[in-house]
Amino acid sequence: MRKAGKIQSLTEEERNHILPLLRNAQWVEAVGRDAIYKEFVFKDFNQAFGFMSRVALQAEKMDHHPEWFNVYNKIAISDHQTITLSTHDCGGLSQRDITLATFIDQASLV
Amino acid sequence: MRKAGKIQSLTEEERNHILPLLRNAQWVEAVGRDAIYKEFVFKDFNQAFGFMSRVALQAEKMDHHPEWFNVYNKIAISDHQTITLSTHDCGGLSQRDITLATFIDQASLV
Repeated sequence: MRKAGKIQSLTEEERNHILPLLRNAQWVEAVGRDAIYKEFVFKDFNQAFGFMSRVALQAEKMDHHPEWFNVYNKIAISDHQTITLSTHDCGGLSQRDITLATFIDQASLV
Repeated sequence: MRKAGKIQSLTEEERNHILPLLRNAQWVEAVGRDAIYKEFVFKDFNQAFGFMSRVALQAEKMDHHPEWFNVYNKIAISDHQTITLSTHDCGGLSQRDITLATFIDQASLV
């Protein structure tokens, strides 16, 4: 929105390289939508919300925010381009999604 | 779970008194499930996650947690008995839901 034109979709080559790695890390490609999601299960709400807080700080820093659902110790994340660019959107997965997914995986291990 | 037997469903009288008040505050009764939900829209993710953090602290204190979905500045809350009692559950709306709903409304105004 504020950085129109800077976000680009992953190229076919990047996609072929990165998606298998994400699949290995239990990320799933959404059907009917160029997005990835993953479910995380923690010991309790304290652990789950601690994780969400770490991701929230990072998401804000990146200006790239997940869609997520939480109930008690479970979090399901569908991370995609939630900020639609006002001039044009990349319309799917970009490097930002990969960066945030990687951060999310790391944050879940803390 | 830890306080089995202490949570009771709202009586018919309590329900008749409280539900109209909740409806006035834009809480909606779920269909096919004894639960209430509401959507909150904030200015941005900072405001939305600030709200979620306040509710999370209160939820943990009450040992009563919302189901919620967030994307950027929007939060949809379906608050119900997510911790099923191991001996028996009240099976629907209890005073705890009303208390948490009231707190959530207040937290959204901060």
